[in-house]
Amino acid sequence: MKIDSWIFEAHDDMKHGYKVKDILYHQQSKYQEVVVLETEGYGKALYLDGLLMLTEKHEFFYHDVIVHPAMFVHKNPEYVLIIGGGDGGSLREVLKHKEVKKVDMVEIDEKVVEASKKFFPTLSVEFDNPKANIMFDDGIKFVKETNNKYDIIIVDSSDPIGPAEGLFNEDFYRNAYKSLKEDGIIVSQVESPLFYEKFFKAHFEMNRKIFPIAMPMIGFEPDYPYGMWGYSFLSRKYHPLNDFNEDKVINSDIKTRYYNIEVHKALFAYPNFVRDLIGE
Amino acid sequence: MKIDSWIFEAHDDMKHGYKVKDILYHQQSKYQEVVVLETEGYGKALYLDGLLMLTEKHEFFYHDVIVHPAMFVHKNPEYVLIIGGGDGGSLREVLKHKEVKKVDMVEIDEKVVEASKKFFPTLSVEFDNPKANIMFDDGIKFVKETNNKYDIIIVDSSDPIGPAEGLFNEDFYRNAYKSLKEDGIIVSQVESPLFYEKFFKAHFEMNRKIFPIAMPMIGFEPDYPYGMWGYSFLSRKYHPLNDFNEDKVINSDIKTRYYNIEVHKALFAYPNFVRDLIGE
Repeated sequence: MKIDSWIFEAHDDMKHGYKVKDILYHQQSKYQEVVVLETEGYGKALYLDGLLMLTEKHEFFYHDVIVHPAMFVHKNPEYVLIIGGGDGGSLREVLKHKEVKKVDMVEIDEKVVEASKKFFPTLSVEFDNPKANIMFDDGIKFVKETNNKYDIIIVDSSDPIGPAEGLFNEDFYRNAYKSLKEDGIIVSQVESPLFYEKFFKAHFEMNRKIFPIAMPMIGFEPDYPYGMWGYSFLSRKYHPLNDFNEDKVINSDIKTRYYNIEVHKALFAYPNFVRDLIGE
Repeated sequence: MKIDSWIFEAHDDMKHGYKVKDILYHQQSKYQEVVVLETEGYGKALYLDGLLMLTEKHEFFYHDVIVHPAMFVHKNPEYVLIIGGGDGGSLREVLKHKEVKKVDMVEIDEKVVEASKKFFPTLSVEFDNPKANIMFDDGIKFVKETNNKYDIIIVDSSDPIGPAEGLFNEDFYRNAYKSLKEDGIIVSQVESPLFYEKFFKAHFEMNRKIFPIAMPMIGFEPDYPYGMWGYSFLSRKYHPLNDFNEDKVINSDIKTRYYNIEVHKALFAYPNFVRDLIGE
């Protein structure tokens, strides 16, 4: 008998599937269904509530964009907050920056960290770093209650349905703004301008009322719908292009497979339909 | 009874599927299986031998990149050759440029043009333009035998398996080079740097021996594998960035949904793994 097994991320009018060799982990946590699969061509894959979060082969696209542009634009990012990011990829990239003294990570679902520690050794590599402070808590509640002031906040969440829903509303961003130093930056994954267009548009309308600078980044992400993914760069002071000091990248020994100086600029090169969508 | 019908572009380890409302056209031509479907979310879709060529919703990504960067970099593109392009999308974009006096289009498969005329009115719009000269012939044979000298040659082919295979080898590019004026440019679709990596690498190794300038363009293309697509910019004289006169775009009244000055530059912003692949 030959088993031809596929996993599909299924949407109303589109499906994206990878061939599966093995099911390694399948747990219903308090918050979501957590699944780890061994795929045929992409290494191990993490699915939350049926949506593909990452594959080992392609995760660098997402983690490069959600971390490095803000970290290189900021003059001295010492204190970083990661909300979500239970797979460990964002933490790994943040800790490549030598200025970083402390990273707080607030992940709601301990099962995601558990799965990552067990199955994603290249992602979970920094959980035991003494600079990393891992908390299992609700990120919405955390930014509401904390008095900490961060240089960078990375909102590495799942999609705006399920446990991450509240990470996309105005209260959250107003509280996150208050949790930044005067020159702080927030980066958030914000779905795709080709997918959830209304959400994407509303996100920037909302955040332009809160932040002096609220700009999309548009990057390649082959594991996500249409391969085109959006992130927001929300900044109290630094402009992502005008305040981008290329020498910081040139003088850095950080190795990346996607990000570089030209890619940094390209993330802010918006197709005309994106300009129309966000009204620029 | 409710029919839940999907079409999948199926690869060894990956599938990409769209929900289908209706099958509009299904013919085996002399060269390939030509299928037109009405999809649920993407308008009509054209498949050749089971591979998705375009959807009405997303085709602008591909046609913007294969046409406009070269047309704007060239100082005066009057005479253009399109090889393939039977859907009409490249012809439509080329004829938006007012300098163009004549376009020869050499498509091997009359059935593709027939299907486009019937089902893709927004693509087939320029087939009857007096500047357009449509020939049904083999593009490989055409560039071998022609004495014409073109300003721009656009190789808008299907994939390097099936009837388009010979459009990717060295003989073809040497003949195409000879069919250019001294400052001519060729643009070709060359699959994805994430897909057929070896082919992509070999294409640039080969063409750097033929052309003084042989550079990739990397663009978003949500209908194609991973949403990240590659094109080659092969030029006898003009450099795509150093000789790019932004005023030509600023002073143009051509409307595009993807392409603009910033996107032009972003197409040449290579991720590190692409630099490594092509040895730059």
